[in-house]
Amino acid sequence: MEQDIRYNQPIIRYQGGQLIEMTDDYVTEFPLTVNVNAHEFATVICSPNHIEELILGFLASEGVIMKRDDLLQLELDEQRGYAYVKINKDIQQLNYLSTKRLVASCCGKSREFYFQNDAAIAKTSMTTIRVTPQQILHMMAQLQAHSETFKATGGLHNAAISDGKDFYVHRQDIGRHNALDKLYGYCIQRHISVRNKILIFSGRISSEILIKAAKIGVGIIISKSAPTTLAVQLAKDLNITAVGFVREDRFNIYSHPERVTDTSSSRTYNNKTAQ
Amino acid sequence: MEQDIRYNQPIIRYQGGQLIEMTDDYVTEFPLTVNVNAHEFATVICSPNHIEELILGFLASEGVIMKRDDLLQLELDEQRGYAYVKINKDIQQLNYLSTKRLVASCCGKSREFYFQNDAAIAKTSMTTIRVTPQQILHMMAQLQAHSETFKATGGLHNAAISDGKDFYVHRQDIGRHNALDKLYGYCIQRHISVRNKILIFSGRISSEILIKAAKIGVGIIISKSAPTTLAVQLAKDLNITAVGFVREDRFNIYSHPERVTDTSSSRTYNNKTAQ
Repeated sequence: MEQDIRYNQPIIRYQGGQLIEMTDDYVTEFPLTVNVNAHEFATVICSPNHIEELILGFLASEGVIMKRDDLLQLELDEQRGYAYVKINKDIQQLNYLSTKRLVASCCGKSREFYFQNDAAIAKTSMTTIRVTPQQILHMMAQLQAHSETFKATGGLHNAAISDGKDFYVHRQDIGRHNALDKLYGYCIQRHISVRNKILIFSGRISSEILIKAAKIGVGIIISKSAPTTLAVQLAKDLNITAVGFVREDRFNIYSHPERVTDTSSSRTYNNKTAQ
Repeated sequence: MEQDIRYNQPIIRYQGGQLIEMTDDYVTEFPLTVNVNAHEFATVICSPNHIEELILGFLASEGVIMKRDDLLQLELDEQRGYAYVKINKDIQQLNYLSTKRLVASCCGKSREFYFQNDAAIAKTSMTTIRVTPQQILHMMAQLQAHSETFKATGGLHNAAISDGKDFYVHRQDIGRHNALDKLYGYCIQRHISVRNKILIFSGRISSEILIKAAKIGVGIIISKSAPTTLAVQLAKDLNITAVGFVREDRFNIYSHPERVTDTSSSRTYNNKTAQ
């Protein structure tokens, strides 16, 4: 099920004081309903490519599957926008928890989680990776270059996963979560460990994106935009290095700066902002 | 319950080849759980201002209330991020429908709806408003000017509602939906009719945003960004004029161009792209 993620359609343009009929590209939205064990689980609105990766990553993010083998069967009905999934357990309880507010403040993880399911699935990072400022700048430049190649009118969310050196996978989607889920699904499908990988993202690091990064299991997230206060609190708590505002020659580190090693002065930060 | 929508916090900046400790502004995310008639209805992640408007607009968008008087009571617990709402009907059925995929293709409205609840609540526009290209350019310039005034690091979603002349209300939020819900709530609270109003939005016109515009009841939506294919199909079907890519001196019309009256040449479009 690979459809075009953009279409050329008629529009009317106002330009130079005139209304002119012409055509223009715009991006496709595809509603995909995921049925798990004959129950309607969720409908995601996505860019219709890498759908299997998306479903795998989405189900893992939601805690429905833990690994590739938990998925017993996957059938796609492209016409109707349905995916029929069979998994090796009962999903009733998970479905209930996924949007249930977390009230307990003693769950052993961050008090900043707001959904019970997230607190159960998001992992405290066990990463041992270190990166240099030059690697951070390079990875963001790589994301920009790839985004240009796959550019669609009006822009899509771009995300990539990398080890800072040779490994690099890029995905894009109209939905922020979907772009990350496609990367997660890519790794699950190929049994690739993400513990020492870096997530590169075009958008803001909101708490939801940070939680998604923790679910995927990466130790560093870098972004063109800023994080939110809640995302930074979660990043500190989940042992994730959050780097934002990455531009050509500069960036900000918001949490766990000890992983960013400044080789030029051999200076390593000792976790000064972590609580 | 008005909190700061941004905070100044310590960061480490990489700049000029150096890692420097400093502070920087970043935006607040506030998880707000809405309890309706003692049932947990939803948790929205928002910028914590204009909370009452947000709740009113959100409940109306979800079809929980139809008008201001349907809300019997509203109590806020700022510390815990809870809103306790009492309404004059049972919400059990609505809660179920809100994320249930719409399968029927003969519901009398667009086949592009993907949730049953949306198809039930989104209105076909009954607007009689007309705008000139100059008004469109002016309204977007107004949004930009207001966004600058209320600017927060990393940017928030900006939305406004206007009659193209004297009436103008601006809201912003970390969530796209919330920015629109705050405007909706503003109008509901003051019994302001939106039928002949225009929605101005900083972000992309996705199908979700178009559906939200239809729920609010506006006849024209204008945006800095592009619409998606699905949003345009819905706009055509729901009698909404979608205008995108509004820049200093140009824009694109994607649906129902008959409402954009080119006064310079006295030319009015006759619904050429509507199906």
